[in-house]
Amino acid sequence: MTHPVKSYAAFSATTSLAPYAFERRALCDDDVLIDILYCGVCHSDLHTARNDWGFTHTYPIVVGHEIIGRVTQVGKNAHKFKVGDLVGVGCMVDSCRECSPCLHGLEQYCEHGNTGTYGGIDRFDGTPTQGGYSTGIVVSEDFVLKVSEELDTKAVAPLLCAGITTYSPLRHWNVKAGSKVAVVGLGGLGHMAVKLAHAMGAEVTLFTRSVGKSDDTYRLGASRVVLSTDEGQMFEVANTFDLIIDTVPYTHDLKPYVLTLALDGTLVLVGLVGELEQTINTVPMIMGRRSISASVIGGIRETQEMLDFCAEHNIVPDVEMIDMQDINTAYEECKRVM
Amino acid sequence: MTHPVKSYAAFSATTSLAPYAFERRALCDDDVLIDILYCGVCHSDLHTARNDWGFTHTYPIVVGHEIIGRVTQVGKNAHKFKVGDLVGVGCMVDSCRECSPCLHGLEQYCEHGNTGTYGGIDRFDGTPTQGGYSTGIVVSEDFVLKVSEELDTKAVAPLLCAGITTYSPLRHWNVKAGSKVAVVGLGGLGHMAVKLAHAMGAEVTLFTRSVGKSDDTYRLGASRVVLSTDEGQMFEVANTFDLIIDTVPYTHDLKPYVLTLALDGTLVLVGLVGELEQTINTVPMIMGRRSISASVIGGIRETQEMLDFCAEHNIVPDVEMIDMQDINTAYEECKRVM
Ligand SMILES: [Zn+2]
Ligand SMILES: [Zn+2]
Ligand SMILES: [Zn+2]
Ligand SMILES: [Zn+2]
Repeated sequence: MTHPVKSYAAFSATTSLAPYAFERRALCDDDVLIDILYCGVCHSDLHTARNDWGFTHTYPIVVGHEIIGRVTQVGKNAHKFKVGDLVGVGCMVDSCRECSPCLHGLEQYCEHGNTGTYGGIDRFDGTPTQGGYSTGIVVSEDFVLKVSEELDTKAVAPLLCAGITTYSPLRHWNVKAGSKVAVVGLGGLGHMAVKLAHAMGAEVTLFTRSVGKSDDTYRLGASRVVLSTDEGQMFEVANTFDLIIDTVPYTHDLKPYVLTLALDGTLVLVGLVGELEQTINTVPMIMGRRSISASVIGGIRETQEMLDFCAEHNIVPDVEMIDMQDINTAYEECKRVM
Repeated sequence: MTHPVKSYAAFSATTSLAPYAFERRALCDDDVLIDILYCGVCHSDLHTARNDWGFTHTYPIVVGHEIIGRVTQVGKNAHKFKVGDLVGVGCMVDSCRECSPCLHGLEQYCEHGNTGTYGGIDRFDGTPTQGGYSTGIVVSEDFVLKVSEELDTKAVAPLLCAGITTYSPLRHWNVKAGSKVAVVGLGGLGHMAVKLAHAMGAEVTLFTRSVGKSDDTYRLGASRVVLSTDEGQMFEVANTFDLIIDTVPYTHDLKPYVLTLALDGTLVLVGLVGELEQTINTVPMIMGRRSISASVIGGIRETQEMLDFCAEHNIVPDVEMIDMQDINTAYEECKRVM
């Protein structure tokens, strides 16, 4: 038995959202039916409804991937939830469940692509997935989250997108008590990054381009606000941060921020989807948590280790010998091949 | 008693190297005097002699930082080496020895700057340091390396620059048996990266822009050669590599290479010194092993962990509630602030 729901849908890229009634699929054995109480509004919703990214192939589309609701029915093999439970559904409703990332709890990086909560193709019946701007949704219990009754329920929804998007890199890069974390930008992602990093015990700095955000920032948990347009302030925090969470959604100059990273520090882009520069597109970086890094020579201990390693494995470079007095000829040769 | 040496020096940025006689300092207690047998010729030597980077302030300058020689005298507190030992000196002859990187054997990242083998300022007597295109050198034993008599001595020198420059990132990013490593470029750095990664048990791929290097490459230890200009070949290795050692010394397109990284893979730039793009300069990345990375949402297990964490710490986003029927007004508002 399918489940009729009401929703607001985009019927084209250029029209306003309008009421739309449709049916959710009958429950599979591991599905739960959720009565939606709240759904967050994410910039991605807007971009998808308007097809700004060119990914929206089917209309009508019901967007919304920050869903909070209560379980009203459970499939016969669904045992994680019972009727009445307060639950959430975020950006994904399925994945292949078999690839290495999936088996390691990294469904967001599923090698076969995760199934988006909206705009995806249902792995069960091949229909387009429809999101949370609706009265109910059917989802496999493996993609449903328990939500505490202790939190302000109506405010929980964005945790499922901005919350996890900032929490995950904070954890992956081992933020803990005493870590020095900076956040670039104070929008939906940035303010969550500040709150979460602070709660993890980090010393949090906010980079901002506008004064006046300060009071707000300290309330969120930042201990310092640095005006990124002020060279003096930027110089004071040179070589400081273990991790920078950069939430800026458009191409921007990374050089000033990179200079504020400590040795082995990482700047993580979570806001920019597209070309950072001609030579770098962030999409494969984002979708694979891939890094671009750099390195210079090695320490003395390591150099000794390398020499010993080469001796053990009989490794030397291919070389050409010259006499000292031929050095200038050799330089000319170098210039020629450079 | 100072030590007279003969050398070849640059007397200006525009003249050829010419013979130059000067004195090495009298031995400090922890110094050793080295009779130089061989010195590698590195592109950096050429750039420094010609002041291509604008760092060369004092002439005459004696370049060369891939030094192999034998110890001929030891300071009274120098106990690591004895007369006759085969030794090496690489890119550094000193550092502050007290900062956190120095105490962790990462003198190359000394917070106060390491002392270059040439073109640096001697921390002991304030004179300009002079490199290995000379008959002898005086160096603190802490910056002298033991060299195996088993290797082909005349070929060992480049290990002290190209060798360690590629060995260090291979170790830092945990290359081991079965690791999938790719190397971009087959010059001095690239061919060492291939040999070393192969010796560490990695499966090594070489990215090249020219066919015909293949035989050479397999001899070095690569198991595959991929023509980076061939889209089909590049597609076949998508999502493959744990680590890419990129040795290309000029601005180049990283996008095709980044696509070949596996989940959590890293591309390490070791050849490019300067602007990768308007928004990214590699110098602070290189000098601090800093990374630029990216990340997308989080897995289900982690999302649950995040929700529990937020419940425990009473964290929710700052939200503004709207009624469903006001969604289009909200979208207009979003567009306005975007
Ligand atoms: Zn979202
Ligand atoms: Zn998967
Ligand atoms: Zn060199
Ligand atoms: Zn130091």
